[in-house]
Amino acid sequence: MKKYGVIGTGAIGGYYGGKLARSGQEVHFLLHRDYDYVKEHGLQVDSCDGSFHLDHVNAYHSTADMPQCDVVLVCLKTTNNHLLKELLPPLLAPHTIVVLIQNGIGVEADVQQMFPDTAIVAGLAFICSAKTEPGRVSHQCYGSINLGNYSCKDEARLHALLDDFHNAGVEAAMVSYDEARWKKAVWNMPFNGMTVALNTQTDLLLQNPSTRKLIRDLMMEVVHAAQHLGVSNVDESFAEKMIEMTDQMTPYSPSMKLDYDFHRPMEIHYLYSRPLEIVHNAGFRAPKLEMLEAMLRFVNAGE
Amino acid sequence: MKKYGVIGTGAIGGYYGGKLARSGQEVHFLLHRDYDYVKEHGLQVDSCDGSFHLDHVNAYHSTADMPQCDVVLVCLKTTNNHLLKELLPPLLAPHTIVVLIQNGIGVEADVQQMFPDTAIVAGLAFICSAKTEPGRVSHQCYGSINLGNYSCKDEARLHALLDDFHNAGVEAAMVSYDEARWKKAVWNMPFNGMTVALNTQTDLLLQNPSTRKLIRDLMMEVVHAAQHLGVSNVDESFAEKMIEMTDQMTPYSPSMKLDYDFHRPMEIHYLYSRPLEIVHNAGFRAPKLEMLEAMLRFVNAGE
Repeated sequence: MKKYGVIGTGAIGGYYGGKLARSGQEVHFLLHRDYDYVKEHGLQVDSCDGSFHLDHVNAYHSTADMPQCDVVLVCLKTTNNHLLKELLPPLLAPHTIVVLIQNGIGVEADVQQMFPDTAIVAGLAFICSAKTEPGRVSHQCYGSINLGNYSCKDEARLHALLDDFHNAGVEAAMVSYDEARWKKAVWNMPFNGMTVALNTQTDLLLQNPSTRKLIRDLMMEVVHAAQHLGVSNVDESFAEKMIEMTDQMTPYSPSMKLDYDFHRPMEIHYLYSRPLEIVHNAGFRAPKLEMLEAMLRFVNAGE
Repeated sequence: MKKYGVIGTGAIGGYYGGKLARSGQEVHFLLHRDYDYVKEHGLQVDSCDGSFHLDHVNAYHSTADMPQCDVVLVCLKTTNNHLLKELLPPLLAPHTIVVLIQNGIGVEADVQQMFPDTAIVAGLAFICSAKTEPGRVSHQCYGSINLGNYSCKDEARLHALLDDFHNAGVEAAMVSYDEARWKKAVWNMPFNGMTVALNTQTDLLLQNPSTRKLIRDLMMEVVHAAQHLGVSNVDESFAEKMIEMTDQMTPYSPSMKLDYDFHRPMEIHYLYSRPLEIVHNAGFRAPKLEMLEAMLRFVNAGE
């Protein structure tokens, strides 16, 4: 049995942390607004794969009270990542693995700079879930997680982590770090921003021939940027596959569109500014993605 | 005295045609919705330079009833330019000059294709005016017109046209055709589309550092496209001047934003698609302008 820490017990942290706790791991949850409720009533996970309730949750209001952990799952929105410098230290032992289950590109590099000696792993969640009320997570579909190794030198611990996910009933696999982050960006960068900029959903963007072409152009800018950076297996055919896949989806509002609709901070920095900075520093221009970033900055300022 | 025809008696046609009529020219006005009103009550021009009323207006409901004219002022929105093939022929004599007082790039070439032997001149109006009610034009400020010779071989007639404007109290000057159209595009292409895409006005776009940079980027794409086409005197310093000028203006909604606000057709074709087609055919790409066009097509489809 290992000690797990979960920073941010929402739709993602509540689900993966909840599954691990149910499977018998010792999981310590950091909560903010829901602390009192969960301390008293526990955590409910309504899931398409079988609902369950955790009666006794190791709930904390401050990481200062939490123990050092073997694995920390960071499930904050990246708009709160500046808090990690204060939040993480009490949980870190020399052998701790920090898994960033977050959106965007550049999060691992920036957290590594805060904690140069910590083993960092990217977590790419493929899941539809939402926190519907205090202490209650609704898991609608999917649920797998891919792990991309950023700086963990201990392969054995990584495989033990995979085993823990499997034992908890979570599909998990190791993937190439750069490839996974950039493949996710091929979908994320066009659709998150465009649904906000035009206040629409994925289906309408693909039905209109002008924006369908624009979505493809934006995807190709991500593909060519990734290729310029030397990331392997990100090519034009992958972008085509992403468009076909989205054609098959029900009308969808990406996370940034939901943030916009509910007047929450948008993850512009790690979804646009940081990747564009990395790309520019490598001498590559992505003019349409730049334009989208500027428009999102304008929309965000008006919020 | 010359015979003038005015196709489209709105904010522009009502003002310039009205000024010419008041100065003693024989002016024939095509009207649509306002025909009955103007036939009975005449035309009122409320103007910062002195208001006036035309009691008896040569008003027509169809160009079939209009005489051949020495000069025809086309003051339609370009979204109606497909009608010109039917509307213009009754007014055209071999010596007729057609002045297109319209927005965008490519209108002269397209009208020339409909009427290969007709002398065509571009009219670039610098004016704030609006049709406020039937038969009533409100002219708030400016009012000058620049003429760019597209295909008129008779210089003497062009100078006589300038004289008529001057005698009517309208500032008018001959300018280089390509230069004038592209200089206007340096302002028009960024501001018309961006105020619609972000549902805002000129001042807020320039106050936000991200969109201020984007406006400059879009202007530079127009400048570099014009330079690629060999248009002279359109350079980066002109774009900077346009930004400084707009900084000094009161918060402004360009014509496309007004069309959007009042659910009228937007001039996407001649403000974006045609110039971008010309630019692409010359082997130049303007990715941010392309993106703006696609977003406007999406917005327009939702209207």
